[in-house]
Amino acid sequence: MEPMAWINGDITHLAEATISLEDRGYLLGDGVYEVIRVYNGFTFYFQAHLERLHKSAEAIRIVLPFRDEDIKKAAATLLEKSGYKDAYIYIQVTRGSARRDHLFPEETKPLMVIYVRPLDPLLPLDQVKPVSSITLPDQRWLNCHIKTINLLPNLLARQKANESGAVEAILYRQDNTVTEGTRSNVFAVIEGVIRTHPESNLILSGVSRNIVVKIIKDLDMKLDEQSFNRNELKKASEVWITSTSLEVCPVDFLDGSQIEGVHPGPITAALMNEFRNEISRSCGEV
Amino acid sequence: MEPMAWINGDITHLAEATISLEDRGYLLGDGVYEVIRVYNGFTFYFQAHLERLHKSAEAIRIVLPFRDEDIKKAAATLLEKSGYKDAYIYIQVTRGSARRDHLFPEETKPLMVIYVRPLDPLLPLDQVKPVSSITLPDQRWLNCHIKTINLLPNLLARQKANESGAVEAILYRQDNTVTEGTRSNVFAVIEGVIRTHPESNLILSGVSRNIVVKIIKDLDMKLDEQSFNRNELKKASEVWITSTSLEVCPVDFLDGSQIEGVHPGPITAALMNEFRNEISRSCGEV
Repeated sequence: MEPMAWINGDITHLAEATISLEDRGYLLGDGVYEVIRVYNGFTFYFQAHLERLHKSAEAIRIVLPFRDEDIKKAAATLLEKSGYKDAYIYIQVTRGSARRDHLFPEETKPLMVIYVRPLDPLLPLDQVKPVSSITLPDQRWLNCHIKTINLLPNLLARQKANESGAVEAILYRQDNTVTEGTRSNVFAVIEGVIRTHPESNLILSGVSRNIVVKIIKDLDMKLDEQSFNRNELKKASEVWITSTSLEVCPVDFLDGSQIEGVHPGPITAALMNEFRNEISRSCGEV
Repeated sequence: MEPMAWINGDITHLAEATISLEDRGYLLGDGVYEVIRVYNGFTFYFQAHLERLHKSAEAIRIVLPFRDEDIKKAAATLLEKSGYKDAYIYIQVTRGSARRDHLFPEETKPLMVIYVRPLDPLLPLDQVKPVSSITLPDQRWLNCHIKTINLLPNLLARQKANESGAVEAILYRQDNTVTEGTRSNVFAVIEGVIRTHPESNLILSGVSRNIVVKIIKDLDMKLDEQSFNRNELKKASEVWITSTSLEVCPVDFLDGSQIEGVHPGPITAALMNEFRNEISRSCGEV
């Protein structure tokens, strides 16, 4: 079993996969990406990720060089060849290789790269550990709804979190509005109401976020998709983050101060449970 | 004569040069770069570019894998092998290749890539054409002083300029403060005084900008390194942009309206002339 990659149709071992030095992804950050989780050999919300990939590509005016069904076939082939049952599929599309210039090249075919890497199977829910988070200024650009490979601001914030002993950094804009984490969306229970930043140019429309929003509605819980500020966050009774790799993950510490109560709190626990049910519905018992 | 590349010490034809798919520059935008102009076979302000490369790398905590003298030797070898006299040297450093993770990998050696490509020799000054510019919102992150490969915001703005028939897009923040162009610094003569955005996190400390600042001082002209807003820009009597590839370049149109007077205006013309003198001093008569 070895990680495999697919590069515009050619399959190779990931360890040997190369791209052109002049690929615009490498020299200019001119690309978008997606990460899809595989449980039990089944992909989770693949179509939702593909739809977001289309939106991201469209936003930066890259025409995807393959159709959805080709992408799905490629992913299935990679999973089969690698033999992984628990894994993630990484998909990246760049504007292709051309003599370096800010302007879009006219006759360059975009490059699509897909690879798979293994992940550990899911932990039983009662073994999922809450994570600590710090808060940091959101210094990113103003189009965070596009899932681009310009990830340096996220890397730097996440690294800072790690070095201060935290797992995530929750970001806030200059006016103290909490936007999202470096690689997750953020929910908080504030005065009994679940809040999360509404979809806008300041956050990524997370696939896991949107599953959780639906679960909240299905459970007849009250959700207010209205942003909150850093002070409100610190007074929240429950905080959790959502992402493809973290699913629903409780936050127990914020900037070194413990959030009161048990972790996960009752609402977080209910959502974690329902999220697992959704995984089971899509991918079989996990 | 063919473009040549140097990759952590290995020399190859640029057209055949590849990097690992898992290079963090490709997947995460985790890198910085420089572009150095070569006139007559001589590099122009190489040391200043190297110093900025050090600053950029330090800002994102990449340790350069080669010493300045090695980099200079590599560039000289590439120039010699390619045979170019008028060219640019491109240098990029990424955090290297590792299993994709936001967190910095612990045992990965950064990758330095250097390549050369030819450019046309300089046009005589009286043949340099003024360029038109549009103004666009500055949607970039808040660390524009770091010269990173996260260039998508610049690409998108520049492409927009191009499609509206302009050569550059001059960017302004939400409070209307003019910062810089997508690939240049901006100067304007406002009520008789030369103005340019001061060095800060909102602009790149341009090597050409700094040469021009020095020239202005040497000429005993009055320079106010104070930002100006979009309205002031539109009332300027002269506007020019500076960059490694454009040197000092007059702007004649802003958002479709012609700036009054001749182009280049008298101050711009004087600076263009002195900039050329500086090139001649460094690289011989051009």
